[in-house]
Amino acid sequence: MLESFVTVAPDSDFPLENLPWGAWEWHEPGASAPSLHVGVALGEHCVSATALQAAGHLQDLPGAPAGVFSHGRLNEFMGAGAPAWRAARQQLQRLLSAGEGAVRDSRELRQRALHPASAVRMLLPAAVGDYTDFYASRQHATNVGSMFRGPANALQPNWLHLPVGYHGRASSIVPSGVDVFRPRGQLLPAGAAAPVFGPSAQVDFELEVAAVIGPGNALGAPIPLAAAWEHVFGLVLLNDWSARDIQKWEYVPLGPFNGKNWATQISPWVVTLDALEPFRAALPPQDEPEVLPYLREEAAHRRSYDVDLAVDIVPAAGSPDTPGLAATVTRSNLKNLYWSFAQMVAHHTAGGCNLRPGDLLGSGTISGDTPGSRGCLLELTWAGRDELELRAERGAGAGVGETGTGAGAGAPGKEAAGDGGVVLGRRTYLEDGDTVTLRGWCGGGPPAGGGARRIGFGRCEGKLLPCR
Amino acid sequence: MLESFVTVAPDSDFPLENLPWGAWEWHEPGASAPSLHVGVALGEHCVSATALQAAGHLQDLPGAPAGVFSHGRLNEFMGAGAPAWRAARQQLQRLLSAGEGAVRDSRELRQRALHPASAVRMLLPAAVGDYTDFYASRQHATNVGSMFRGPANALQPNWLHLPVGYHGRASSIVPSGVDVFRPRGQLLPAGAAAPVFGPSAQVDFELEVAAVIGPGNALGAPIPLAAAWEHVFGLVLLNDWSARDIQKWEYVPLGPFNGKNWATQISPWVVTLDALEPFRAALPPQDEPEVLPYLREEAAHRRSYDVDLAVDIVPAAGSPDTPGLAATVTRSNLKNLYWSFAQMVAHHTAGGCNLRPGDLLGSGTISGDTPGSRGCLLELTWAGRDELELRAERGAGAGVGETGTGAGAGAPGKEAAGDGGVVLGRRTYLEDGDTVTLRGWCGGGPPAGGGARRIGFGRCEGKLLPCR
Repeated sequence: MLESFVTVAPDSDFPLENLPWGAWEWHEPGASAPSLHVGVALGEHCVSATALQAAGHLQDLPGAPAGVFSHGRLNEFMGAGAPAWRAARQQLQRLLSAGEGAVRDSRELRQRALHPASAVRMLLPAAVGDYTDFYASRQHATNVGSMFRGPANALQPNWLHLPVGYHGRASSIVPSGVDVFRPRGQLLPAGAAAPVFGPSAQVDFELEVAAVIGPGNALGAPIPLAAAWEHVFGLVLLNDWSARDIQKWEYVPLGPFNGKNWATQISPWVVTLDALEPFRAALPPQDEPEVLPYLREEAAHRRSYDVDLAVDIVPAAGSPDTPGLAATVTRSNLKNLYWSFAQMVAHHTAGGCNLRPGDLLGSGTISGDTPGSRGCLLELTWAGRDELELRAERGAGAGVGETGTGAGAGAPGKEAAGDGGVVLGRRTYLEDGDTVTLRGWCGGGPPAGGGARRIGFGRCEGKLLPCR
Repeated sequence: MLESFVTVAPDSDFPLENLPWGAWEWHEPGASAPSLHVGVALGEHCVSATALQAAGHLQDLPGAPAGVFSHGRLNEFMGAGAPAWRAARQQLQRLLSAGEGAVRDSRELRQRALHPASAVRMLLPAAVGDYTDFYASRQHATNVGSMFRGPANALQPNWLHLPVGYHGRASSIVPSGVDVFRPRGQLLPAGAAAPVFGPSAQVDFELEVAAVIGPGNALGAPIPLAAAWEHVFGLVLLNDWSARDIQKWEYVPLGPFNGKNWATQISPWVVTLDALEPFRAALPPQDEPEVLPYLREEAAHRRSYDVDLAVDIVPAAGSPDTPGLAATVTRSNLKNLYWSFAQMVAHHTAGGCNLRPGDLLGSGTISGDTPGSRGCLLELTWAGRDELELRAERGAGAGVGETGTGAGAGAPGKEAAGDGGVVLGRRTYLEDGDTVTLRGWCGGGPPAGGGARRIGFGRCEGKLLPCR
């Protein structure tokens, strides 16, 4: 366990072993305007690599140009590749360690480089050139296919042969803490002969994790599977907000469009693969059918990470007795994928398509084998057939082990419910005012429970506002 | 007819009435490195707005920030809106007119601002944040639907109610003059039980026109139909290179992905709506069914432009008797749309999705009513059933009326074929070495034929290289 001179609570998402990367706006006391920073999270602080580099630290990062942290976005650093990432991580772990005085003993440098997380505004970590969304969880694809085509034909013929994906919208990607508006759109009411235009009545979340691309490739030069992980800078949580009624009417034959492009939300901290390394986990074999050679991973190399995932909903009002209580509506894990991120990278580029630093590759909804691990309301309510109870349990929900550097938004679930829990409401799809929070973490167990040091993702959180 | 002191051939695509916008790299004789410029095409020259503004011209552009032409990309100018575009156009038409001495009489300024088109390297006019492709030609959708589902079910139920579209890939958009590699990919051979991975055998072009977005909108704030044209900076030609066999296997249920994302090509000059204004053309009524109010255009406001479109193919070798001869394989027109660009903008943003300056909205393949006006080989050969003869006719092909500022690539079709034409080859899909050229123009008639002054788009041209 590494010790820092910066206070880090035992159950923090962001110990010195994590150091996830992000970008933020910081209004220094006395300054005339806010300034842009990139850097890492540590406990309840954002550590500015921008300020540390300007003060002469973080100079020798192999492959990274001078001033790589001066742009307010991490794209250039992401493009520099693993040697630069590793060097920055090692230097930061040293600079921030309990025994190192360079920052610890300089009040001026601490003031310039350590920003309280509660006082910053988190931004997107990188400009997202392109966002791709896959459909990589077998259980999710099976559930959705079963609803619409029956269990015998749940998976389309191509699904087990390639990671099905589509191009999403980059412009409408927002960081955690930004609230979103319920969309209007064209939809076909049940039994109607003609469509209408109006507010979506089926707004949903999707629990996903996205890979943030590092160096990427030139147009026409595919990334082979064996090199694919080298092009992943790290992972973030992703909520692929969806309007199911709009999507259902529009998506044949070219795929989702207005049903999805009104908002996609990500957690602001990119957790690096180096931080996740102790939590490598296997993925299921792909032998029925065996996949084609360009996608074939040796069992020993076929990997994901053991990241626990959860989604909480906090209703706008709830009852007067339950202010701010959160109901955890699903618990899943990043191991619940059939296709690895490396396979997504290799398939995406197989025809020559180029990936650029900062691009996002979403996993698609991550659902497990049990009803409680389904990653969206479409599945949890079986397309609206079954109402879902929003129940806040004692010791459950977003308040647990959540002392980390969030997105600056509210902190649901600070109070636990009584024995047996409290029912906050019932849902088929989301209601106006619902706050949806995705969480992800590795290790740590219950608060103060010991075990491996917790590596957390922080939150991906947004409130659904009424139609504008 | 406007007269410039710069020589403009009577059949040029780029008279003073046009002034389309682009970006390029120019290596000034004696300079140590190339420099980036934005500006307009005029006859055989690129006129640098970058240089003119640096010399004190083009200063008063309402809504545009100072130095708007100094970035090497046009995004900021596109975002400034119609008053700035109109002011720049008027000032350039005056500065470049025969009677105005400010540039004409300054040898130094002419050398800095007038770059021979043959000596520059054209770039993308703007950084493309997002690229969307629609499916807006009824005849194209009908042809494709007829092939796969029969004429009775050609159009999907949603097609007449909304402009169907999908998100494309922005990273792989290239300007005219860049050659592309035949992609490899996963495909299901006819009659096979399992897919294989290998070179696509069905590489196609798609004849499209794309709108380049101007100011755009904030997330959550739709652009109403009545304001939609104000958000279109201009139009370009677009070749949506497609691998039909890859597309066919992958596209259910989320739409085209690797079948399309390996290359999308655009003409480098953005023709403004002000230049196209004399060529406004009506679109067919939408009364069976009537479209919903948010998409309903009064007949008087429902518009496209009368832009003749053609696609030429020049085989790599041809016969020794036909070096460089071009076969025009289709002739269509921008009037062959069912959905207007204004409707595409309004629908795209109806749920709150934001458009940004420089975004591209492709029309989808533009096919007319006749077999000779089908906009892609999939239609021209009816999915490979009928071979297409590549015939170079006398007076036809890319050589006609094509003296404009191209993309710096080759100039096919300079020699006309003999009476009855010359057969250059036969195709179902494209062969390695085929050069595909899209052309578009308004007015002008045959060379020196009089009539309205020709407003041309130049070329969108690329060669299909063998698999890398």
